[in-house]
Amino acid sequence: MTISLIGLDADDTLWHSEDGFHTVTGRFCELLQPYAQDPSNLATTLDMVERRNMALFGYGVKSFTLSMVEAAIEVSGGAVPAETIQQLVDEGRTLLARPVDLLEGVEEALAAIAARYRLVVITKGDLLHQEQKLARSGLAELFWHIEIISEKDEPTYERILERHDIDRNRFVMVGNSVRSDILPVLAIGARAVHIPAALVWTYEHADHDGSVPTLRSIRDLPHWLASTAATAA
Amino acid sequence: MTISLIGLDADDTLWHSEDGFHTVTGRFCELLQPYAQDPSNLATTLDMVERRNMALFGYGVKSFTLSMVEAAIEVSGGAVPAETIQQLVDEGRTLLARPVDLLEGVEEALAAIAARYRLVVITKGDLLHQEQKLARSGLAELFWHIEIISEKDEPTYERILERHDIDRNRFVMVGNSVRSDILPVLAIGARAVHIPAALVWTYEHADHDGSVPTLRSIRDLPHWLASTAATAA
Repeated sequence: MTISLIGLDADDTLWHSEDGFHTVTGRFCELLQPYAQDPSNLATTLDMVERRNMALFGYGVKSFTLSMVEAAIEVSGGAVPAETIQQLVDEGRTLLARPVDLLEGVEEALAAIAARYRLVVITKGDLLHQEQKLARSGLAELFWHIEIISEKDEPTYERILERHDIDRNRFVMVGNSVRSDILPVLAIGARAVHIPAALVWTYEHADHDGSVPTLRSIRDLPHWLASTAATAA
Repeated sequence: MTISLIGLDADDTLWHSEDGFHTVTGRFCELLQPYAQDPSNLATTLDMVERRNMALFGYGVKSFTLSMVEAAIEVSGGAVPAETIQQLVDEGRTLLARPVDLLEGVEEALAAIAARYRLVVITKGDLLHQEQKLARSGLAELFWHIEIISEKDEPTYERILERHDIDRNRFVMVGNSVRSDILPVLAIGARAVHIPAALVWTYEHADHDGSVPTLRSIRDLPHWLASTAATAA
């Protein structure tokens, strides 16, 4: 069936994101090194604290920053000085304020497909921060709707399609996370295109069975859509 | 013109919220008292740090918790121990997890009006937390749509009415905050009903000119709607 709506993930599909968390995690390890009871374990503990907090805190930089504060206290056995905690909060603030760095080819690819399809951003994370990144990206005008959600699961994708009265056969989701952008979309009977990113947060790690269309870059998306349309016709 | 859509604020209109921030602010003052350079100034400094962070952090408990951490370091000149910072993060966690405590008369009032009007929750704050509170409230089924937004300003109200194809003459917003629920709604030419709450966050403080319908309790909303409909007929 002909595609009428394209869902696009934002973080690490339209712009760089994970690299920022990666850099700040490095900074966390550096800052906590002098106070750590087990300096080999710093990034692992931070990751564990994040996962523990996920159900209550949710995704995004503010949750990550609160988890850094807790992990700092934990790895240091309470010995971390307030000054270091302030540095961690400042790292979070820098992450929230940093400019949007689009992935290569995003502007051209979106301009090419926006003329033929309705585009919707479907992103999870912090409401205000995702809105701010969209505004900074210069891409907002290309989208029919913006969907900022707390979890990318089957009911959420179903609700989005229902709300916009879109048949699941006419929807394709494009993103870098197999766990969030691919598997739940396939599960509701819609299509998905995987564009792997250079860095993947371990929390998002999952595999698909290899049958999912996988592109090297968003540059290849207009061509994939054109050839899919030709096959359907 | 006949009313067809009623917007309802959530925090301190449907359920208690500000009392939690109030209690935790008291706890902040208690915990920081021994380390403070000026113990008379604790709540004021926290409020100042919150306002300073608002544009980047936005509303909600996670932002408030990050501001508590920063304010603790600030008022103590860096002398606050990690243990106290952990206690502040735990206070934030308790605030996120606490059960929803409905205001008196909410269930009856909403049940009475849900049969005649479409109801939309319009609330700002943290996406995940507001969703969780709605789920815990047991009220979710009564609403046609849930709108969780980052700021309650004129463009946002306009966008909500446009998205649902509702004429502004047919919309009335009900809430406790003059700044967020009343003034921007009047500014776009729609109607608003003010139901003052016992506690008002200083950030939300504003006055209306006295011409806005003001109810003592949400219990009075069904009657107000009925008499407004009678006048319009």
